[in-house]
Amino acid sequence: MNEVEQQFASDNYAGICPDAWAAMDEANRGHATAYGADQWTAKASDAFRDLFETRCEIFFAFNGTAANSLVLASLCQSYHSVICSDSAHIETDECGAPEFFSNGSKLLLAPSTNGKLTAGAIRSIATKRSDIHFPKPRVVSITQPTEMGEVYTVDEIRAISEVCRELGLRLHMDGARFANACASLDCSPAEMTWQAGVDVLCFGGTKNGMAFGEAVIFFDSSLAADFDYRCKQAGQLASKMRFLAAPWVRMLGNGSWLRNAAHANACARRFAEAAAHVPRVHLISKVEANAVFLKMPESMMEELRSRGWVFYTFIGGGARFMFAWDSLPVRINALVEDLKDLGRSVV
Amino acid sequence: MNEVEQQFASDNYAGICPDAWAAMDEANRGHATAYGADQWTAKASDAFRDLFETRCEIFFAFNGTAANSLVLASLCQSYHSVICSDSAHIETDECGAPEFFSNGSKLLLAPSTNGKLTAGAIRSIATKRSDIHFPKPRVVSITQPTEMGEVYTVDEIRAISEVCRELGLRLHMDGARFANACASLDCSPAEMTWQAGVDVLCFGGTKNGMAFGEAVIFFDSSLAADFDYRCKQAGQLASKMRFLAAPWVRMLGNGSWLRNAAHANACARRFAEAAAHVPRVHLISKVEANAVFLKMPESMMEELRSRGWVFYTFIGGGARFMFAWDSLPVRINALVEDLKDLGRSVV
Amino acid sequence: MNEVEQQFASDNYAGICPDAWAAMDEANRGHATAYGADQWTAKASDAFRDLFETRCEIFFAFNGTAANSLVLASLCQSYHSVICSDSAHIETDECGAPEFFSNGSKLLLAPSTNGKLTAGAIRSIATKRSDIHFPKPRVVSITQPTEMGEVYTVDEIRAISEVCRELGLRLHMDGARFANACASLDCSPAEMTWQAGVDVLCFGGTKNGMAFGEAVIFFDSSLAADFDYRCKQAGQLASKMRFLAAPWVRMLGNGSWLRNAAHANACARRFAEAAAHVPRVHLISKVEANAVFLKMPESMMEELRSRGWVFYTFIGGGARFMFAWDSLPVRINALVEDLKDLGRSVV
Amino acid sequence: MNEVEQQFASDNYAGICPDAWAAMDEANRGHATAYGADQWTAKASDAFRDLFETRCEIFFAFNGTAANSLVLASLCQSYHSVICSDSAHIETDECGAPEFFSNGSKLLLAPSTNGKLTAGAIRSIATKRSDIHFPKPRVVSITQPTEMGEVYTVDEIRAISEVCRELGLRLHMDGARFANACASLDCSPAEMTWQAGVDVLCFGGTKNGMAFGEAVIFFDSSLAADFDYRCKQAGQLASKMRFLAAPWVRMLGNGSWLRNAAHANACARRFAEAAAHVPRVHLISKVEANAVFLKMPESMMEELRSRGWVFYTFIGGGARFMFAWDSLPVRINALVEDLKDLGRSVV
Repeated sequence: MNEVEQQFASDNYAGICPDAWAAMDEANRGHATAYGADQWTAKASDAFRDLFETRCEIFFAFNGTAANSLVLASLCQSYHSVICSDSAHIETDECGAPEFFSNGSKLLLAPSTNGKLTAGAIRSIATKRSDIHFPKPRVVSITQPTEMGEVYTVDEIRAISEVCRELGLRLHMDGARFANACASLDCSPAEMTWQAGVDVLCFGGTKNGMAFGEAVIFFDSSLAADFDYRCKQAGQLASKMRFLAAPWVRMLGNGSWLRNAAHANACARRFAEAAAHVPRVHLISKVEANAVFLKMPESMMEELRSRGWVFYTFIGGGARFMFAWDSLPVRINALVEDLKDLGRSVV
Repeated sequence: MNEVEQQFASDNYAGICPDAWAAMDEANRGHATAYGADQWTAKASDAFRDLFETRCEIFFAFNGTAANSLVLASLCQSYHSVICSDSAHIETDECGAPEFFSNGSKLLLAPSTNGKLTAGAIRSIATKRSDIHFPKPRVVSITQPTEMGEVYTVDEIRAISEVCRELGLRLHMDGARFANACASLDCSPAEMTWQAGVDVLCFGGTKNGMAFGEAVIFFDSSLAADFDYRCKQAGQLASKMRFLAAPWVRMLGNGSWLRNAAHANACARRFAEAAAHVPRVHLISKVEANAVFLKMPESMMEELRSRGWVFYTFIGGGARFMFAWDSLPVRINALVEDLKDLGRSVV
Repeated sequence: MNEVEQQFASDNYAGICPDAWAAMDEANRGHATAYGADQWTAKASDAFRDLFETRCEIFFAFNGTAANSLVLASLCQSYHSVICSDSAHIETDECGAPEFFSNGSKLLLAPSTNGKLTAGAIRSIATKRSDIHFPKPRVVSITQPTEMGEVYTVDEIRAISEVCRELGLRLHMDGARFANACASLDCSPAEMTWQAGVDVLCFGGTKNGMAFGEAVIFFDSSLAADFDYRCKQAGQLASKMRFLAAPWVRMLGNGSWLRNAAHANACARRFAEAAAHVPRVHLISKVEANAVFLKMPESMMEELRSRGWVFYTFIGGGARFMFAWDSLPVRINALVEDLKDLGRSVV
Repeated sequence: MNEVEQQFASDNYAGICPDAWAAMDEANRGHATAYGADQWTAKASDAFRDLFETRCEIFFAFNGTAANSLVLASLCQSYHSVICSDSAHIETDECGAPEFFSNGSKLLLAPSTNGKLTAGAIRSIATKRSDIHFPKPRVVSITQPTEMGEVYTVDEIRAISEVCRELGLRLHMDGARFANACASLDCSPAEMTWQAGVDVLCFGGTKNGMAFGEAVIFFDSSLAADFDYRCKQAGQLASKMRFLAAPWVRMLGNGSWLRNAAHANACARRFAEAAAHVPRVHLISKVEANAVFLKMPESMMEELRSRGWVFYTFIGGGARFMFAWDSLPVRINALVEDLKDLGRSVV
């Protein structure tokens, strides 16, 4: 089978990074106790506690949809609601998983610029209704970085968590690309999360270079009660857990989680800088992580496609390019060249 | 980290077999389209169609709890019920997952000998109530091999499917160890499933030597409608699907799925034959797959544990030993020797 | 206990009309078989079949939230979605009941003028996404009359049902005030429903003058399969069903269902005509049923309240007045006089 | 329409008692605020607080299935389980409603004699499993009186609540016929409930002589948090709540709740005493409330039916007779006479 030539449609197109692979290989020696009672799982949990400099509770789920939904279900009863951006992944790309796992919790959507919630928008939605005919707000969910590739500053997160505390809301961070946000901001994982008031984080492994797996991190351990039962019942307890856990041990241990993300971010910046000079091409959002959103004429996107490039488009008109831990400069250059060529020629 | 010395507590203690590992390695070259739109997923689906000699619809889930529950949820509405053995995994070891995924479908338990349902027991349960105050029977679920390690013959399955057809019930086979049943019976996968009247099969990969992953196989493709949406919503759609799919391509292709199972079964037989001659030790169920259930005095089990052996016990008193694709003769011999030694000495 | 002086905050403030009361009294003679196997339930079902001039399937639920949600749950799987107006009762005032009953079906909201969906808006929403990462549209739900008191014409309903048929969607009508729509339009119940392409109707009894109870009417009887089980499981099967059913027998039989609604509609028109002449007061939507929505200065609403009037306000600024089967001209006049008085004096 | 001649198949065959009817009539004067913000609902709640001599939180649901299921859903998460008798109504006659409302909580069944749970049986079930592969026990549910018409003594309830406290379980009482238990035991409602350790009671109104309606009484008010939202979302919030509430005001106020139950109980005793002397007829359970269970030959039951009597039979062979607030001595005598006649003649 021939490998597919690199595209920048999704960071999910990339495979398993060498460190994750080596860790799985190492974990594959002999037998290990099932369902997370193995030493890899224990070590991975400790590695997270070291990274976040706090006693936190760690669980592993197979993918981000499950991780986010399980967290929301654990924080909400069915008659509660979750405040999120109108472009949040939990709203636009999880096929109703949060509502399914929570047995009906409603998502309340805040109009947002490039995916960022603000304290003001949260307050406005949370205080709009207080009668029993409408689901009671219970959680705020932010995506870091946002679906448009922007990164909340620590101050922005702190402002959000303050309004959450004031209004009795919990704060969830969807960190499918949390590593990219860490590589982007000059702060520690602790500063960006629990020190800024985040209650629960979903820390993405898949887009960071693993085969599968997201870590769910409860900074308030009282919220983690029985979460293991919830994972089990929802089909998210891996029997051979070591293969979800071992990659974290190595990647958190040797820093490759951050290097992978930094590489992807750098690729995005490099591409964005080149693309920004192409006639009729405009950056739509700030390039602060590994995503680049370009506004360009429809005809130009068609031409790009006819030259073999694969990418997602979005409502309003534009193209998304995502960079991964393994993005190749040569392919980025090729994409830039094609863009430039089209910028010159297309009328 | 030191590897754990082989135990026979669970076939989940084993790691990834060489063929599954090589397949993941091969699939890890370069990029691939996400969410199952890759060539590995297509090839794995075709490999199942070849193996089962029919046009069937294939989906991949992360684990067996999810695979079983998604199937039951797709066959049932919330007010339906599922007839299964009182020792069925879906009843005893999935933490209410079937009820959770289906939003309330009830399991109706048939008392069973060594986990086997019979046509008579199904009829009796299915016809006991027909008023709206009790959930309407909709599905029969059998485990092949059973949780007690016995294997339904093709005739037994056919007798069950006949009563299902007569009563308007669908037939689901939980095949977490389906390969072991195939290695045990002298028949083709097709004969044991759709030709015998099975509607949907969950074919276990994890216990067969993979890291993760079960295949859901709909033999009646009308039942598969929208199952992809169901998987996605329930957090069971892998973004890097190729790593769930590729092991099947190789293992179904080169026969290692069956060899792995045959090895495990042979280990179980070998152990059972030796154990059966130990004084005060008795086989509880027939050894037809990779499980051996032994009745022995409580004191003997304690002695075994004090010698470092790990195993599950069960209600009624006894010990379970499960053999895997990698079970080592030397460890089996060591266990047998310890048993014999205890058989001689324990009073 | 003193009775509360009539308000026009909600048509739910009204009690049981004389015909409904007399029917309950009559049904209360002696014993009757429970759970709907009584003659009143049979007669009520036949009365609906006469009214709608077709063989339809009838079920009774305790309230409108349950009736709507049960219907949506029966038409949808959890990964489906329902297209409705952004002001639909199922979205704004049922506390997530549709999502709860359906175990996660998402409501897709169309921006609407005065609550009316259009064929164009439906098509736009239904065709926006077709990938498995977003819930699959399955049902369109319209409220007749809308929450803003406007009535879909038969042609408008037909246009909607045509796009539904084309796109494979089912059409649900939330008729909490269906009688008011019938009294408003010059057409038969049949013309406004199944002849115009409606698949299922929730026909409200409570606001029509009963103590409790809504009828669910399936015009396509294949959709009604097992709906009785669904009602039972969801706590909507009345043991003393005759008391839900008997009022329908009498009220459909002697036409009081329509007279009650016509009275309420006439009160709304009468009030609206008078209010429209008050300075600084404006009608927001057409008065086609029993609701009147008035835009007026905030100070004026405060003054009204200080004079003892109770009413709901809505986002954007304005007051809602609802009229019931028993609305008293003298109270309407009193409200009009207060409005006029405030219109003259408030600056 | 002719009334049906009195049968003793179910106490649901009886209609609305005069006090409940008069209360609804009185409540039907004029307007009242909707959704429970009316004076009848406030007065009914106070009446319960007086009756139970404590500050408790009161909610109203339409029927017993909903009341029980809402309570269990509020006490459990989806991965929890509920311990109950194998003949509990929540298990045998609610069509999976508890599992539906709770999104999957499993019922763990204790074999029981005449429906009574014991502290020993609870302990045995609750401690059988403590791993995450099986739903975690969270609630014990007892039916008072049991489905077989026996009444738990205060000491029995206290013994159960003690084991509940010890094991961290909540205690729910399904009191669909709670009034009958009160009339049977020489104790106050307080002694039988919160003073004996019951956390939540569902107090049945329907079988006590109302048209519809059950009261949910939380003795631990922290458990009642947001229960109003839960009722609303589940379609159990009556808009014209006064008609559910007013009957309680009058019936608790003037003692008719207890007189109704005492009458029914007396009828049951009277019938049981006569039936016990009929040849080949045997009492199966103690007659402590309004139910009488008779074992008799199948041929005798057929003869009874052919003489026009309607009754339920049960697994194992026997007939159930239930007496209501309005059971007529003349009809009881007629039934006794028929039984005696058959006892003499049938061979």
